[in-house]
Order: sequence, then structure tokens, then C-alpha cells
Amino acid sequence: MTVKTIGILLFDNVEELDAVGPWEVLSYWTLTHPEDGYEVRMLAAELAPVTAAKGLRLLPDTTVADAPPLEVLIYPGGQGTRPRLADPAELEWLRGQRETVPLLASVCTGALVYAAAGILAGRPATTHWESLDYLGELDPSIRVDREARFIDDGDVITSAGVSAGIDMALHLVDRLAGRERAIEVRRGIQYDPQPPV
Amino acid sequence: MTVKTIGILLFDNVEELDAVGPWEVLSYWTLTHPEDGYEVRMLAAELAPVTAAKGLRLLPDTTVADAPPLEVLIYPGGQGTRPRLADPAELEWLRGQRETVPLLASVCTGALVYAAAGILAGRPATTHWESLDYLGELDPSIRVDREARFIDDGDVITSAGVSAGIDMALHLVDRLAGRERAIEVRRGIQYDPQPPV
Repeated sequence: MTVKTIGILLFDNVEELDAVGPWEVLSYWTLTHPEDGYEVRMLAAELAPVTAAKGLRLLPDTTVADAPPLEVLIYPGGQGTRPRLADPAELEWLRGQRETVPLLASVCTGALVYAAAGILAGRPATTHWESLDYLGELDPSIRVDREARFIDDGDVITSAGVSAGIDMALHLVDRLAGRERAIEVRRGIQYDPQPPV
Repeated sequence: MTVKTIGILLFDNVEELDAVGPWEVLSYWTLTHPEDGYEVRMLAAELAPVTAAKGLRLLPDTTVADAPPLEVLIYPGGQGTRPRLADPAELEWLRGQRETVPLLASVCTGALVYAAAGILAGRPATTHWESLDYLGELDPSIRVDREARFIDDGDVITSAGVSAGIDMALHLVDRLAGRERAIEVRRGIQYDPQPPV
């Protein structure tokens, strides 16, 4: 069986929970059920530690150059997206991913980079609430959704800010492996949220 | 102003979200409001990378030996707690922390290590739902709570599994810095959970 790879992109000033929330959900699933044929990897330009937006340093597993073809790419948000959405090489790379990766997903302001690359043209999409206007400015053809927790538009999924990546990742498990698996993961990480404020 | 330190303990096979959920919540607060006088650090026995339970490698900021006196210690869970709760040196260290640290908090099966150290004797406490029975076996004087998302018992706070650490950390912000701050953090990380399954 060929294992399908879900890649979560790390970069300097990536928001910690944008990346680690989906990592927890997805790797709980893939490690508990290897028979489903998926794996999750943390990708980055280099193998050196990435310093995230709140200062946590994370080590990638695999460079982008050495990664196997991806089944799913997850682009997290964070302040580190701002230089990236203005970087022609990054946008060109993303357009190349669009040609080959069946499913592109974003968390939080990861959607801004997709928007700048033209990937969200004419689509419904969302992002962190503070960046909803900017999302529409980057590409006025985007149908900015101000209410959704995440939007599954087929080959693109965008999610709202930070913690919304957990909900989006549970949806991904549901979509890729079925409801039973997603419920199992939800129970495993005891995701019965009760915000105290 | 002396900065008060909140330490989150990292160790091999720590559960990723147990540590990074509270990290996101607390460091969002401390970095946005340095005037509140708190900082968050990732602590570990050594500065070498820690390999977490799902394979993510994280770099600590500070060794336990070099850390300043803590205001709050957060003990995450994960499979890595099992050898630690059977390690006399770890339990002795924890009892020492109890003497000097005003507030000990745990996420998930971090509570098992506290229980083994005698820190939860006679108290209400919780842990991951799969370990509730074990918590009571480690110390039958613990009043195991099977419903609570987290339990604030004054100088000890325990929380339920994995994602419950996010709720517990928001409560910590509320307790240490007030309701307004906690609401601001909740908005900042857009923590309006909508589990899709």
C-alpha cells in the first residue's frame, strides 16, 4: 500500500496552534489507524528549527524539496504569512502545488497566501476574523464568508482563526476516513470544548 | 517589575496539544500584555529537542535546573507520563516544586504524576477519561471527578484530556489577569469551537 502524505507547512512566525492543532488531530488518526494509509509530516524549507510566532521552536520532519507528492497540504497562519504572500517564489511554488496536490487546506491567515497566489479566485473562503477584509482586498473575486468555522470547497478548505484548525482537521478525518474515525479522534483528544469565558 | 514565570514542562512522549494548547493561550496573553508581568517558558531536563508522543520535536527554552522560581508549573500528559510517575527522582522533584510553586496545574495524564507524588491527596481532581480509574488507584484519597473539564482547587488545577488544556489555560488567564484579558485571548485565537462530528 502506498502511504498518502498530509503535509503541514512550518515557517518562521507560523502560529503555534495553527500547526499543532491539526497535527494532533491528524496524527492521532494516522498513528492509531495506519491501515487507513495516511501519514502526517511537518514540512519546511530546511530541517533547521522554525521559530513560531509566540517563540516556540519546532523541528520539521522533511524539507519541502524532499517531501513525497502530497495528498493534502495544510498552510497554517501567523505573522509569518505576511512576507510569504509578498514573495513571488512562494506564490509560484503554491501554484505548482495546486497543479499536483488534490487538496489544499489553510488555517487562519494561511488563506491570505492562497489568495495572493490566486488559488481562491471566485471561491468562498474564510480566515482569521481580523483579516477578513484583507482577504477580500487581496482578491476581490473571493466570496469572503464571515461566519463559517471552515469552508470545504472541494479541492480547497479554508478555516477561521487559530483554534478553528482543530475543527477543520476533524472534518478532514471525517472526509478522508469517515465519521467513525473522526468521532474516535474527537474522543481521544477529549475535544468537548467548554470555554470558561 | 519582576516577571513571574509560568513553566510548561516538556519531556519525551509528552502529548503535543497538552503542551502547545496552553502555550498558545498563555503566550498570546503574556506577549500582548507584558505589563501584566508574566512570561511563559517551555522547560525540560535538557535543552535538546524533545520528541513528543505523536513524533513532533520541540525545543525547550530553559532547563529545569536553570529556570527561575515558578509562579505556575503546568504538567502536560501523554504516554511519557507513565515512566515519570514511577521515577522516584521525578516525584521528589515535584514535591520540592510543591513547596515553592504557588500553583501546580496539569493537563490530561499529567495529573497521574501529581497523584503519584501525593500532591492530589484528599483533593478533587480529573484527568483524561481513559485514566480516571487509574487516577483513583494511584491515590484512593483523590476525589476523582468524571465530569469536570478542569478543577480549580486553589493551589492545584487539574484538567481533563488533551484539548481540555485550552479551556484550563483560559481559566488561568482569567484567574491571573482577569476576565477581560481571558476574553481578549479567546477572541484572538478565535476559540469559538464547533466540533464537526
